[in-house]
Amino acid sequence: MTKVLKKVSEKKGMSPGSLVYVGEEDPKDTKISIIDYNKDELNEKITNKIKDCLIFKNNKNVSWLQINGLKNTELIKELGKYYDIHHLILEDILNTNQRPKIEIFDNYIFTVLNILNFDKENNKIISEQISLILGKNFVISFLENENSIFDLLKTRIKNKKSILRNSEVDFLFYAILDTIIDNYFVLLENFNDKLEEFDEQLISEPKSDILKKIYNLKREILFLRKSVWPLRELILKIEKSNTSFIRKKTYFYFRDLYDHVIHIIDIIEINRDLLSGMLDLYLSTINNKMNEVMKVLTIIATIFIPLTFIAGVYGMNFENMPELTWGFGYYGIMLFMFLIASFMLYFFKRKKWF
Amino acid sequence: MTKVLKKVSEKKGMSPGSLVYVGEEDPKDTKISIIDYNKDELNEKITNKIKDCLIFKNNKNVSWLQINGLKNTELIKELGKYYDIHHLILEDILNTNQRPKIEIFDNYIFTVLNILNFDKENNKIISEQISLILGKNFVISFLENENSIFDLLKTRIKNKKSILRNSEVDFLFYAILDTIIDNYFVLLENFNDKLEEFDEQLISEPKSDILKKIYNLKREILFLRKSVWPLRELILKIEKSNTSFIRKKTYFYFRDLYDHVIHIIDIIEINRDLLSGMLDLYLSTINNKMNEVMKVLTIIATIFIPLTFIAGVYGMNFENMPELTWGFGYYGIMLFMFLIASFMLYFFKRKKWF
Amino acid sequence: MTKVLKKVSEKKGMSPGSLVYVGEEDPKDTKISIIDYNKDELNEKITNKIKDCLIFKNNKNVSWLQINGLKNTELIKELGKYYDIHHLILEDILNTNQRPKIEIFDNYIFTVLNILNFDKENNKIISEQISLILGKNFVISFLENENSIFDLLKTRIKNKKSILRNSEVDFLFYAILDTIIDNYFVLLENFNDKLEEFDEQLISEPKSDILKKIYNLKREILFLRKSVWPLRELILKIEKSNTSFIRKKTYFYFRDLYDHVIHIIDIIEINRDLLSGMLDLYLSTINNKMNEVMKVLTIIATIFIPLTFIAGVYGMNFENMPELTWGFGYYGIMLFMFLIASFMLYFFKRKKWF
Amino acid sequence: MTKVLKKVSEKKGMSPGSLVYVGEEDPKDTKISIIDYNKDELNEKITNKIKDCLIFKNNKNVSWLQINGLKNTELIKELGKYYDIHHLILEDILNTNQRPKIEIFDNYIFTVLNILNFDKENNKIISEQISLILGKNFVISFLENENSIFDLLKTRIKNKKSILRNSEVDFLFYAILDTIIDNYFVLLENFNDKLEEFDEQLISEPKSDILKKIYNLKREILFLRKSVWPLRELILKIEKSNTSFIRKKTYFYFRDLYDHVIHIIDIIEINRDLLSGMLDLYLSTINNKMNEVMKVLTIIATIFIPLTFIAGVYGMNFENMPELTWGFGYYGIMLFMFLIASFMLYFFKRKKWF
Amino acid sequence: MTKVLKKVSEKKGMSPGSLVYVGEEDPKDTKISIIDYNKDELNEKITNKIKDCLIFKNNKNVSWLQINGLKNTELIKELGKYYDIHHLILEDILNTNQRPKIEIFDNYIFTVLNILNFDKENNKIISEQISLILGKNFVISFLENENSIFDLLKTRIKNKKSILRNSEVDFLFYAILDTIIDNYFVLLENFNDKLEEFDEQLISEPKSDILKKIYNLKREILFLRKSVWPLRELILKIEKSNTSFIRKKTYFYFRDLYDHVIHIIDIIEINRDLLSGMLDLYLSTINNKMNEVMKVLTIIATIFIPLTFIAGVYGMNFENMPELTWGFGYYGIMLFMFLIASFMLYFFKRKKWF
Repeated sequence: MTKVLKKVSEKKGMSPGSLVYVGEEDPKDTKISIIDYNKDELNEKITNKIKDCLIFKNNKNVSWLQINGLKNTELIKELGKYYDIHHLILEDILNTNQRPKIEIFDNYIFTVLNILNFDKENNKIISEQISLILGKNFVISFLENENSIFDLLKTRIKNKKSILRNSEVDFLFYAILDTIIDNYFVLLENFNDKLEEFDEQLISEPKSDILKKIYNLKREILFLRKSVWPLRELILKIEKSNTSFIRKKTYFYFRDLYDHVIHIIDIIEINRDLLSGMLDLYLSTINNKMNEVMKVLTIIATIFIPLTFIAGVYGMNFENMPELTWGFGYYGIMLFMFLIASFMLYFFKRKKWF
Repeated sequence: MTKVLKKVSEKKGMSPGSLVYVGEEDPKDTKISIIDYNKDELNEKITNKIKDCLIFKNNKNVSWLQINGLKNTELIKELGKYYDIHHLILEDILNTNQRPKIEIFDNYIFTVLNILNFDKENNKIISEQISLILGKNFVISFLENENSIFDLLKTRIKNKKSILRNSEVDFLFYAILDTIIDNYFVLLENFNDKLEEFDEQLISEPKSDILKKIYNLKREILFLRKSVWPLRELILKIEKSNTSFIRKKTYFYFRDLYDHVIHIIDIIEINRDLLSGMLDLYLSTINNKMNEVMKVLTIIATIFIPLTFIAGVYGMNFENMPELTWGFGYYGIMLFMFLIASFMLYFFKRKKWF
Repeated sequence: MTKVLKKVSEKKGMSPGSLVYVGEEDPKDTKISIIDYNKDELNEKITNKIKDCLIFKNNKNVSWLQINGLKNTELIKELGKYYDIHHLILEDILNTNQRPKIEIFDNYIFTVLNILNFDKENNKIISEQISLILGKNFVISFLENENSIFDLLKTRIKNKKSILRNSEVDFLFYAILDTIIDNYFVLLENFNDKLEEFDEQLISEPKSDILKKIYNLKREILFLRKSVWPLRELILKIEKSNTSFIRKKTYFYFRDLYDHVIHIIDIIEINRDLLSGMLDLYLSTINNKMNEVMKVLTIIATIFIPLTFIAGVYGMNFENMPELTWGFGYYGIMLFMFLIASFMLYFFKRKKWF
Repeated sequence: MTKVLKKVSEKKGMSPGSLVYVGEEDPKDTKISIIDYNKDELNEKITNKIKDCLIFKNNKNVSWLQINGLKNTELIKELGKYYDIHHLILEDILNTNQRPKIEIFDNYIFTVLNILNFDKENNKIISEQISLILGKNFVISFLENENSIFDLLKTRIKNKKSILRNSEVDFLFYAILDTIIDNYFVLLENFNDKLEEFDEQLISEPKSDILKKIYNLKREILFLRKSVWPLRELILKIEKSNTSFIRKKTYFYFRDLYDHVIHIIDIIEINRDLLSGMLDLYLSTINNKMNEVMKVLTIIATIFIPLTFIAGVYGMNFENMPELTWGFGYYGIMLFMFLIASFMLYFFKRKKWF
Repeated sequence: MTKVLKKVSEKKGMSPGSLVYVGEEDPKDTKISIIDYNKDELNEKITNKIKDCLIFKNNKNVSWLQINGLKNTELIKELGKYYDIHHLILEDILNTNQRPKIEIFDNYIFTVLNILNFDKENNKIISEQISLILGKNFVISFLENENSIFDLLKTRIKNKKSILRNSEVDFLFYAILDTIIDNYFVLLENFNDKLEEFDEQLISEPKSDILKKIYNLKREILFLRKSVWPLRELILKIEKSNTSFIRKKTYFYFRDLYDHVIHIIDIIEINRDLLSGMLDLYLSTINNKMNEVMKVLTIIATIFIPLTFIAGVYGMNFENMPELTWGFGYYGIMLFMFLIASFMLYFFKRKKWF
């Protein structure tokens, strides 16, 4: 089941700013991948020491530090010191249970959001928190695990002709956000596919497990909604911030991102309405089936119960029952029964019961 | 079934601004129709080369370039170069899955919205995306397929006395939007007709397929809503933009357009309420029918079950059953049964069961 | 049935500003009634030529032109020319399917709203559109048919001592709006009376046609809502407009009008809630009745079915059934049956089934 | 039943400002009670002539004029003249069907709100309209009937040490509002008590009259809501008005009043949610009971119907039925029936039907 | 049951500002604990006299006065005098039924909010009101009972290296709020655990008491919501206040607090949606079970009722029934019955009833 809230109670009452990792599963060892590039050259490095990163901090190239794995809190602390990051921000990075948000400082922009992936094996959405720090000429990304959604992005960086390779660090920041947000569309498509699949099952063969499935879809959409809604405000904040970290010509790209988020929110809200419509439809179909069942019972029962009574009457053992001795008695009573049954059938027909 | 979301996943991770057409069906070959006019003269041209358009760009007439078909991405790219259009905008034009929006630039206004048509054969709403670019003295429209809703508009352009012919390019831009938005009213009328048709069926003969129909109407109205809601903000943005592309006296027409959109939204919301009211009504009618069925069953069963029991008692084969030998036994028991049945009928009558 | 949307599709694609009357029924011939007054004198005139009105336009008296009937579009066009009215406004006047709105121009104020009357014969709300133009010293009203709700207003004008007679044209404008809005209260009272009537029926004798009635009430309230909600914004706009057409001391009257509109909206919303509460109540009452029916069936059936089985057993024709020959067999079995029945009754009693 | 709307139709079309009392019941004769006080002295007077009040108007003491009963419209008119009150305000005072509102004039503040009392005898909320006029050194209150909720307030005025006695007229105005608003809490407590009482009944013994009670509670809460919601805006208006009638240090008290109103609104909304939760709970409990009934019927019927059939078979009178002559036939068939019944019970047990 | 509203009616009509404690249970004797610290030294004192506190008021250290127990109103009054606190604020402190709010004065900030604890024994949420006063160099907290949630906080104060110990009084104020708000997460986790527990029960074995449990969860979440919603506005007010009591660098911490509150509100709203989804699911499951029961009944009844009728016919005692004498009569009729039963089973199978 998709979880609404990860465990955070361990942190309660601790000093704000105390660096404890609260992720659900054991994070792998922290690994640092660095891509450093300008129009002409590109360096890649994989390390696990912060000191190796510092050379990239001070050159004029665009550099992207990917911190994968958050277990090594000492390393995060060290990085915080070198890059002058507020200790509450470090705490937010490690507490992988954040609501998406953005903080704009004088020397960097911090943002945290969720990467959602659909795990087909367990049939549930897996949420991973990504924290991004945009500095003067670097982006630092923090992830619990390495994520494959950025592979294409890296290919684009390596392509000397791509806009990304020829732009400044703010465009890299935008491209990362764009990749994450575009990924929500994939989830929504997956969601819509399921919805349409149900849609067809719903009328043809409404099984009771559909109910559980609808409920799970509802959970999923609520979960998605929780991750997407705050993004609206988040991107608006970038647009309004007037920060020097974002160049004028990049603003338009963020405007485009904003439109995507609004579009996703629209689709989520429509899907919620469709889901509740499907639930109504399912319940009514079930209800109709029940109705049909009841009608069959009622028709059969109301026809035969009186007839059985009549048969019962002539099965009584009274000595003095003149009808029993009449020669045509049996045939007469059978005809009588037939008339009653016919009348009832006619009555039900007129009532449109079948 | 009306689709909420077209496939977009193919584009995920690609460079923003990469020109790929994501429409659902194969678009026809791109065809360019040009109408170029002023008060006195009017030229029409159909071509498939961008270069043929350029003469119209630089004269002082109002010109309307209609790009029908989006498959030829090279052509779109070329047009983008000649008319100096941002590559993200070109991407939006080709990605026919946009939320209605407007972008106001220094050298042009870009807007994208949906033309909705009701396909009576397949009984579903077909949505087609139209992108419009309003420049200094031209409007460019991009459509996947040629659409007949603009035929009347073209006739008006050809009429030398029409306001449209005697106005500037901003009025043409308004007239195109007005045509698209007025078309929503046609859909809503169609929708209302269906609703009223159901309304009568609902009470007289509530068949189970109505449920499915109501659900489909709900889908449709949600779809319509998705296309119309953003228009509100869109037109407000034009009004507030204070752009030099719209002349002062044309603003009033946009105000009128805004009122139309609000009116459409009002009707959509009322229809949603009516639909949910119809669903309630249908379910309750079904429920009432079921009730009636149950009452018939109960009346018949509760009258005859005790009587059948009595008949059964006197059908027992005990040797020592004095009543059986009584001369009036049979008549007495029949009278007794009649009294029980009468009492029960009286009881049900008093309970107002029939 | 109260219609949500009148036919407008005929107008689609026409030139904006083309004067076509789109009302539902054939309007009567256009008739112009004029009342022209100041403190001391009062003239009334009925005509069907615009030229007859012009003398009243230029004098300093307050004059009220009532245009009843909109068929004669030529006349409306002529009037538009003399009074310098924008052709889109003329179009709005003739298109009797407008959402209530107000437009404030330099030389006049235009407003359109609905007069709602309850047609008791057909048991439905009839909506009529009224357009008002407030000029420097005149009010022009446009109606499809003459309406009796203004009779009292005219009497007040004729009364030399009334505030209305002694005030300027803005007070006449206010008085007309006040009459229309106060008329909504009458509809709401009518509505509330029906609601209370149902309320009593609902519990005492819930017939199935109540459902249809509730649904029709819901339609009506939605219709009412559609006409009233925009009034809120409309009057606020007058207040904020700071237009010279409304004198300072009249503003307070519009404030009072605004309070009335808010009050009407409040009552409408409460009535919607009450209606949905009534629906719930009705459905539950029906449900309870069904429950009662089921209980009677169950009690009768569960008591007699086992007894009938026992009687059936001793009605079997096996040769070797010792009980049948026992002298007290019959009495014993009757006692046994009685005990079973008593136990069941006790069981149902304890379950509080009756 | 608590009425949503009092009759106002009599007033329709009348001149705005025409003084007609529209209260539901005959108001008692108008009675004027005056309390006039400063720190050192206090005068009380009961009269029915306006002239007796004028001496209090012109002295420097705080004076509270209580007009109880609104039948004597002449007297109200006279008072309006002496105190220079707008004739629309006088109309509002007499029209006891107002939405709570406030009007801030240069020479006085006018406010109208509802005093709600719970009439335990008739088990309904009684609403009484109170109009207040705050002038330079006086408060005038208008009530249909004398109301006991102000008794404590008067006691506080008489207490020489109370803050009220030692403050200016704005504090008196505040204290009256505070008394009225605090009275809503009493109603809510009463409401909550009922709710909790139901809560216990609901599960233990869900009788069908609870439904009607829940519905009446819903009506009540809607009624309460209608009276309280506008208060929020009303008090905000005082705060924002910056009127000289309210001294700076008294503003804080109005802030406190505002918090009370918000608190009341919170509780009302929670109660609405609880009510709808209770309705769901009730319906489901009823549904569960029905389920239980159906299960008993089904178990009994499905066990005995097949058995009765078997008994019926061996009750047939065919000459050639070998089983009937078998010595162990009867015992065998009884055993067979017993096995069938046992199997069915096992089947139902496994299905967890009991 | 978690109470929505504590008794306040005793206070109605009293002078605003009259100091009466309205808590539900007898508060314990008032106890004052003081922690006074700077970087270098720390003093703790427990007393029950206000005079003992005054030395801490005037030194330059940060001091935290904890007033535990509110029974001793004289003491509160005295404290109000020494610290110059408005008497309405003192009233709010004692009236432990406040909506969370904040008041910013020139010489102190007052805030009141609720500490929620889950009482596992009685399975209900216990709400305790805490009032905080932030002065120039002191925080005063008022609680009905001593609460253990601050224990960790005190430990942090005693730790010479903690940020808290090395910060000013505004950070202490923040830390207290942070502790309270973080505590809501614990409640939500507890809530989510219950929800997930139900989730599994719901499908596997839907017992009727789950309904009551869902309803109680709904109550709880409403209660939580009532406490948390106002916090949003409360913290925003601090941020916007620009008060000198909060240092610039502490503002960022309040921003963080605000994010926490929004996160809590998000989770609450999702939980409400999940709850209503669970209710739907439960009701539908119950409905499905009922359906299944009805089907079994209908199948058994509709198969055997006609057969029983046939058996009944041949149990009649007519003298002239030729079939009875036929040698194969019995076997023929048994075969006929078998065919009917088979046909019915086939019919039900095709209808997918089992």
